[in-house]
Amino acid sequence: MSTAVEARGPGRPRCEGTKQAILRAAYDLLEEGGIAAFTIEAVAQRSGAAKTTIYRWWPNKGALAIESFLQVVEKQNPFPQSASAIADLKTQLRGVARLFRGRVGQLVSSIMVEAQTDPETRRAFVDGYLNPRRAAARKVFERGIASGELRAGLDFDLACDALYGAIYMRLLLRHGGLGDAAVDLLAETVLDGLRPRPAP
Amino acid sequence: MSTAVEARGPGRPRCEGTKQAILRAAYDLLEEGGIAAFTIEAVAQRSGAAKTTIYRWWPNKGALAIESFLQVVEKQNPFPQSASAIADLKTQLRGVARLFRGRVGQLVSSIMVEAQTDPETRRAFVDGYLNPRRAAARKVFERGIASGELRAGLDFDLACDALYGAIYMRLLLRHGGLGDAAVDLLAETVLDGLRPRPAP
Repeated sequence: MSTAVEARGPGRPRCEGTKQAILRAAYDLLEEGGIAAFTIEAVAQRSGAAKTTIYRWWPNKGALAIESFLQVVEKQNPFPQSASAIADLKTQLRGVARLFRGRVGQLVSSIMVEAQTDPETRRAFVDGYLNPRRAAARKVFERGIASGELRAGLDFDLACDALYGAIYMRLLLRHGGLGDAAVDLLAETVLDGLRPRPAP
Repeated sequence: MSTAVEARGPGRPRCEGTKQAILRAAYDLLEEGGIAAFTIEAVAQRSGAAKTTIYRWWPNKGALAIESFLQVVEKQNPFPQSASAIADLKTQLRGVARLFRGRVGQLVSSIMVEAQTDPETRRAFVDGYLNPRRAAARKVFERGIASGELRAGLDFDLACDALYGAIYMRLLLRHGGLGDAAVDLLAETVLDGLRPRPAP
């Protein structure tokens, strides 16, 4: 049986409205119970859309959960575009850590947990969230290399993992802080490297 | 009712033998099913020790699981003590990544998962595994600073998180490799920093 929303189907005028209603319902459910309790069934009930409609757009619950998460989170912390690539990296890193200290951090850790047993959630998180963020970071790195702020020959992926991996590890193990001061010091440590530099 | 093993109790001659039997049984169970299915009850059955005996040494399942894990893993990858602190860091980092590529990696990710819902497991992992490893790394950093290989004023905790956080993140999200070449490049990236250096 189709609901009123479902009757029009995708591609019809109300298509985008239905999609947004599904994404909103999905995010609300994520916020309420994390990804472990998240099901397509529950999203269907909450949004009023049929399960078949949901599956037409998202192949599995991981893909839907991550897209709904992205819609909310991506808007909250884009890479800034100042004159300094280093300043932009530091601002964004602070922003990620700030999000991780709150509700988003709980969500991300629940997604990391789910990703250990559900390959679809892992792939959706890597493809939908992590890789696009890394592509955005890469543009900032390239801007920094062009301006002379960052060294050429940088391995972007490993530079990202050194900066963001520390924040993910602290999110999951809480063995160190995620405050602005700690994150600034992390950025400085990775920017300056561990080897000594000649005095300027 | 006490078993034959239990009758002597801790502090008696067979105490260390009982302890080792419990730790061996605990590690075998961890290897078989990860930490999620790990219980004091199952360890008692497998080792033949009474639950009361186990609880006399370990306050909770997290503490026992981590200690049994440590006994096996710590021996596998100590920090080497060569003339170069940088070489030692790189060797140890490669070793961790190599362990993470195999069965130990599955165990560590199952511990990270459990740590998200069980504070005792999280604390046992941080206090029993992570912090002692960081203390060992700190000694290597200090040796490197004394020899001039590493810069003074380094924040040891953040340097550790930049190096090891990347490896933990890759263990959990599998978005990048943990092979020797990738790990060497990670070490070089963090050692050299992201800022340009004057030509030597």
